[in-house]
Amino acid sequence: MIQYQEILNDIYNEIQPFINEGKVANYIPALAKVDPDQFAMSLTLFDGRSFHVGCSDNKFSIQSISKVFTFTRALDIYSTELYNKVGKEPSGDPFNSLIQLEHEYGIPRNPFINAGAIVVTDALLTKYKNIDNTFDNILGFIRDISDDQTIDFDKEVWFSEYKHGFRNAALANLMKSFNNIDNNVDDVLKTYFKHCSITMSTKELSRATLFLANHGVDPINQKQYITPQQAKRINAVMLTCGHYDASGEFAFHVGLPGKSGVGGGIIAVVPKVMSLAVFSPRLNSWGNSLVGTKALELFTTKSGFSIF
Amino acid sequence: MIQYQEILNDIYNEIQPFINEGKVANYIPALAKVDPDQFAMSLTLFDGRSFHVGCSDNKFSIQSISKVFTFTRALDIYSTELYNKVGKEPSGDPFNSLIQLEHEYGIPRNPFINAGAIVVTDALLTKYKNIDNTFDNILGFIRDISDDQTIDFDKEVWFSEYKHGFRNAALANLMKSFNNIDNNVDDVLKTYFKHCSITMSTKELSRATLFLANHGVDPINQKQYITPQQAKRINAVMLTCGHYDASGEFAFHVGLPGKSGVGGGIIAVVPKVMSLAVFSPRLNSWGNSLVGTKALELFTTKSGFSIF
Amino acid sequence: MIQYQEILNDIYNEIQPFINEGKVANYIPALAKVDPDQFAMSLTLFDGRSFHVGCSDNKFSIQSISKVFTFTRALDIYSTELYNKVGKEPSGDPFNSLIQLEHEYGIPRNPFINAGAIVVTDALLTKYKNIDNTFDNILGFIRDISDDQTIDFDKEVWFSEYKHGFRNAALANLMKSFNNIDNNVDDVLKTYFKHCSITMSTKELSRATLFLANHGVDPINQKQYITPQQAKRINAVMLTCGHYDASGEFAFHVGLPGKSGVGGGIIAVVPKVMSLAVFSPRLNSWGNSLVGTKALELFTTKSGFSIF
Amino acid sequence: MIQYQEILNDIYNEIQPFINEGKVANYIPALAKVDPDQFAMSLTLFDGRSFHVGCSDNKFSIQSISKVFTFTRALDIYSTELYNKVGKEPSGDPFNSLIQLEHEYGIPRNPFINAGAIVVTDALLTKYKNIDNTFDNILGFIRDISDDQTIDFDKEVWFSEYKHGFRNAALANLMKSFNNIDNNVDDVLKTYFKHCSITMSTKELSRATLFLANHGVDPINQKQYITPQQAKRINAVMLTCGHYDASGEFAFHVGLPGKSGVGGGIIAVVPKVMSLAVFSPRLNSWGNSLVGTKALELFTTKSGFSIF
Repeated sequence: MIQYQEILNDIYNEIQPFINEGKVANYIPALAKVDPDQFAMSLTLFDGRSFHVGCSDNKFSIQSISKVFTFTRALDIYSTELYNKVGKEPSGDPFNSLIQLEHEYGIPRNPFINAGAIVVTDALLTKYKNIDNTFDNILGFIRDISDDQTIDFDKEVWFSEYKHGFRNAALANLMKSFNNIDNNVDDVLKTYFKHCSITMSTKELSRATLFLANHGVDPINQKQYITPQQAKRINAVMLTCGHYDASGEFAFHVGLPGKSGVGGGIIAVVPKVMSLAVFSPRLNSWGNSLVGTKALELFTTKSGFSIF
Repeated sequence: MIQYQEILNDIYNEIQPFINEGKVANYIPALAKVDPDQFAMSLTLFDGRSFHVGCSDNKFSIQSISKVFTFTRALDIYSTELYNKVGKEPSGDPFNSLIQLEHEYGIPRNPFINAGAIVVTDALLTKYKNIDNTFDNILGFIRDISDDQTIDFDKEVWFSEYKHGFRNAALANLMKSFNNIDNNVDDVLKTYFKHCSITMSTKELSRATLFLANHGVDPINQKQYITPQQAKRINAVMLTCGHYDASGEFAFHVGLPGKSGVGGGIIAVVPKVMSLAVFSPRLNSWGNSLVGTKALELFTTKSGFSIF
Repeated sequence: MIQYQEILNDIYNEIQPFINEGKVANYIPALAKVDPDQFAMSLTLFDGRSFHVGCSDNKFSIQSISKVFTFTRALDIYSTELYNKVGKEPSGDPFNSLIQLEHEYGIPRNPFINAGAIVVTDALLTKYKNIDNTFDNILGFIRDISDDQTIDFDKEVWFSEYKHGFRNAALANLMKSFNNIDNNVDDVLKTYFKHCSITMSTKELSRATLFLANHGVDPINQKQYITPQQAKRINAVMLTCGHYDASGEFAFHVGLPGKSGVGGGIIAVVPKVMSLAVFSPRLNSWGNSLVGTKALELFTTKSGFSIF
Repeated sequence: MIQYQEILNDIYNEIQPFINEGKVANYIPALAKVDPDQFAMSLTLFDGRSFHVGCSDNKFSIQSISKVFTFTRALDIYSTELYNKVGKEPSGDPFNSLIQLEHEYGIPRNPFINAGAIVVTDALLTKYKNIDNTFDNILGFIRDISDDQTIDFDKEVWFSEYKHGFRNAALANLMKSFNNIDNNVDDVLKTYFKHCSITMSTKELSRATLFLANHGVDPINQKQYITPQQAKRINAVMLTCGHYDASGEFAFHVGLPGKSGVGGGIIAVVPKVMSLAVFSPRLNSWGNSLVGTKALELFTTKSGFSIF
């Protein structure tokens, strides 16, 4: 039997020399002021047991991790029709993303680049009519899968992101000009930045991700959130597109489907076994948590759970 | 115990309704004249047993599958220095590939897009001095890992590809203008097209791929071809970049590291368990074997060997 | 002595067979409803005489012709410092314009593509603080050079352009993300669309353009609006960039510095001699007035005033 | 009566302070070894008189100026059908040129960017069958319009350009992959580089360009080389596309149709009046002769011959 707590404790010790490496995201002041040297890691098993190390109750901005949850909601609502609006293949670098949108008539390549996540948010806004309803649905879903009704968002981060989000506004307006955004651009962006500013702990995130490790069904309370095919699709997209320009790097080092956020969090899935979340705010050069990536790599090495 | 022969036989029956779907690659006459309705599938286990169905002794043009073998050779020779010349991240579509080269100073994104494979061939040419020596080394390596010294190439396909390879010549010259090709462009292209024109059967290909399933060591004869880290890297690149614009699609449907060729072949790896090869010349809209992809999907479904 | 009225009358007759060719701009309803078969042509000499044919008192939406006037104002205010924000070289096609902005850090290639004109409007907004003041200054300037204080804008066109201007919003936000827009994006766009919706007749436009034919000095009332160097620059930019993807075509056929608008108007300058304006709402495939271009070509042929 | 010799002498004196500014093209050794501080200027009038200053008998590599002569030949042979293969509108920067080719199916934007000139050479090669015949025709034409049968090319420059021309080879191969090159790519490139390596003096170049100032007819010997429409077209393309990324700058400063070469030469045309040639090897940041551009600007200022 695997000694998970021991593994987490070992990881905690082994990442210490790196805890000061990398740089906290500073494109908005609200993110820059986070304590940079935090570290937390959590895992949740199908039988409900969970293991934690570090500041696993500290909340942080989930940022792009929210894209996994909005993609999940949109797949549940629209099924494969969603792919008329957004692809499911890896994209090139951020430079290419605008060119690609221009060349491919406003259809982003996958739901985990910003353009794709904005389209997904637009699809949810169409279903739930207005910003508040839509955000309530997204937040409600995240509370459900986390089994925690207290989860909320950070108003200051939301406002700050919205105020500085010119590149995302460019993407949204470009897609709108290709008729691939159905709602008011400003409403879409407000909703998008709002779900990016949701704050969670690794404890909550690893719990929330569990259904993706189990074919769409929460193994603890048996709630089915999506079909097995949809869960497989989300995992496949996480594996090939979950870490921007370091998706191949992450597949190599960690070998698990995962999704990182610029707030320093990463979620990962060991299919049929468990879900994980790590947090450490300093980022590597690709914009993913430096210590978080290392911690996950150590985990797959120690546990043998890599897909390779 | 899994009944592999039974699984293969079932797959053989289940793909029959699709055997006439898709279109054979016809950009060169030499490829277009292949019998379109062939199907073969082979798998090789660590204990040396292998299972086959269909025309598993028929030779076909391995085309881009050769990129896996040249990447393996180059990694062995240059180790991580190779990454100064070629990246290891997914790229966007073929349209972007030229733009990406232009924007990123002639460094292709990964060794499985054409530009990347050309750079890898250039690196081998630097090591082995001339076309003949270099090709002999590549072919010799493929014969070794296949445990079959009769494997050879198809002169007509070689010549035909070389004669029509203007887009590849554009890529190679562009990279040369950025000093990312060290040898004579024409020599590089001739060598590149030559290894693309190697012909193999699924029986040979599944045998040849086995070392990638076992951390770089052939489990049958214990020869070590590359380090475990390198084998893991190759598998990671196959998983994220192995099927051009359908890499995400393949990850979803098949859920295994793999690489396809426009000749209708696909290799795949079940890490720590086995290697597989399929062949069927008709291609789907992304340029991958239509029935071959289906057969691998059926295999992971029936055997439970998907990474998800 | 040249018989200008006779030339205009001849042109009027000769363009009749083409008056039904081409298509009125219909990307917004407010422009689409214009009477499509109108034609007017006006020219103004340095001695104050002017000649007209057709509906030369009919007002129409000047659209991109306003870019000449805002560029003039910005040059007067910022002189060559303006070129830190916008270039003065021809650009490629609209597809390239977004890629070019991305590649060149948000600096548009010239003030007559939309991105460039938006930057110019932003510069004026910086000087005049708010939308109303800025627009009043632009409108006041146009009234001055036209010697007509009744000129105004079309609220419906303004509102309609603003409501559908997603592509321009994409450009503005992208430039803002590169810090090349100093004011609120929405304010800039509102001001931009407002000056595009100014309505003028060919009589007014040819009068307004006269200072550009005379080194920046109105030859009738001797008011100096800009320096001779600045007037020369504006003419050079009109010559090389005045007609989007048909700038070379216009230089060939007409051989005069000019600027067209999607509302069907074109202004042109015979340096040291006169200014001209034509109007006909149906556009050729490049988005320039079809009959207007023909009329100017006939004019330079008949008068011998081409630069070639 | 204008005192041309006096004007040239004045220009000679006024450019002296700048004679050491700028940098000689050094991408190939054969060009780099030119004496950098040379200056020459020549003009030829319709009555056959010509005026010169500086080393106007010194031969230099005409480089891209040859594009004007090959375009002339191709227009004469193919008339407007040529435009199926090459456009006549300004392009963006060199970065965009490859992207533009990719996006516009291998059709370059104009005959004065490298891709366009390569297509023009290909068209001539189709007509004249092989490299020698084609080059002989081009050289023969240049000898005819120069009225000088001794003009020749520089073998060392030719060979050196050909050996280092990887970017041009990339462009040619890309266009070939779009079926916009009809002949063998290597033959096209060899011919292209050969006509770029023709050497002429300003005396010869100004004589050679005279027919373009006079509607296609040499005013001295009355030979008609092209139609008036074709001459007008060539002048229009020179005006809008003659100086790469400084075409607008040249139009502003000089105000004449012209074409520069990286060897330090520039030709220019005063329509209906004269033709000019200047030479000075040091280039400005856009790759055009620094002192040559200044000299032409001084000329139009002093003579009043600017189009503005």
